[in-house]
Amino acid sequence: MCRNITAEARESLLGQKGCVIWLTGLSGSGKSSIANQLEVRLHSMGKSVYILDGDNVRHGLNSDLGFSDEERVENIRRIGEVAALFADAAIITIVSFISPFRKDRDMARKKVPAGRFFEVFVNASLNLCEERDPKGLYKKARRGEIPDFTGINSPYETPISHELEVDTGALSIEESADKIIDLLTKKRILCAE
Amino acid sequence: MCRNITAEARESLLGQKGCVIWLTGLSGSGKSSIANQLEVRLHSMGKSVYILDGDNVRHGLNSDLGFSDEERVENIRRIGEVAALFADAAIITIVSFISPFRKDRDMARKKVPAGRFFEVFVNASLNLCEERDPKGLYKKARRGEIPDFTGINSPYETPISHELEVDTGALSIEESADKIIDLLTKKRILCAE
Repeated sequence: MCRNITAEARESLLGQKGCVIWLTGLSGSGKSSIANQLEVRLHSMGKSVYILDGDNVRHGLNSDLGFSDEERVENIRRIGEVAALFADAAIITIVSFISPFRKDRDMARKKVPAGRFFEVFVNASLNLCEERDPKGLYKKARRGEIPDFTGINSPYETPISHELEVDTGALSIEESADKIIDLLTKKRILCAE
Repeated sequence: MCRNITAEARESLLGQKGCVIWLTGLSGSGKSSIANQLEVRLHSMGKSVYILDGDNVRHGLNSDLGFSDEERVENIRRIGEVAALFADAAIITIVSFISPFRKDRDMARKKVPAGRFFEVFVNASLNLCEERDPKGLYKKARRGEIPDFTGINSPYETPISHELEVDTGALSIEESADKIIDLLTKKRILCAE
């Protein structure tokens, strides 16, 4: 059955364009902090924004998935599909997952209309991330307690087709969020037309 | 990491409360027509509303799932989880799936805060649904071409804890949508406070 209300109509109502801001980077690179800062800033501008991250996805939709290679691929596949639904609902959707593999990120990109997917490489050196170690995961991984931990014993595939890179070794969280908002403004995401 | 922007803040921004309107009923009972009518009406009232149905879920998020008992349970589980995310994003979320099993619908209900789940039994007799047969599925099922077709060779468990019943044998699509909007108004879903 065809829909009466289009994505464009929803965008007009909200005065913004639905999109996916896909934050990828090592654990400790600053993805969550940037996601939160971005959410606060966009919300205060009156924009409808929603974060998809481990907190609300890993324990819910993807609670049946473990950390095998296959399950990691399926984890990102589902997140990409859900992000696409949110974008179709005209929401500015922030995805915050390590998402270490290019192929998986590219698959997520294909689920949304052209120009509505912003891959943001949250870049910080492994040394810096390991120094920060906000969740103590690197220590655990170094002790061999986490198999396949990205950056330690599982690869992180650096983005090559990303829309933006934020170097959190050089930029503050606020400055990183600024750069993303500048991009969204330039791409006319923060207005409906 | 705790969130700075709460569900309540998102609701204030949109002037509505996030919720799930779960339409359940036989194929041909009128779920899709009611979902579409409801979407048009709520959108024209300036409300942010989104439909989750076979069109956007079965071919995307749940494209890996077939129609075995296990896969049907997983289909509804994922839809319940995604609907809960949308409701958390302050969206009025319309779910339109046969969802024949009580246990699965109850599981979806548990994913959203109390008072934010509206199970709507879209009721029409099997005879009437079979007469309408909008997709020609009953004919196929009667010819034995669809195994486990709800109402023919697979049971439909009539709701017992639903918030509303609309009898589409007696009510028009418009009248059915009216009843749902009345319920949402009474439950103060269409305002933020």
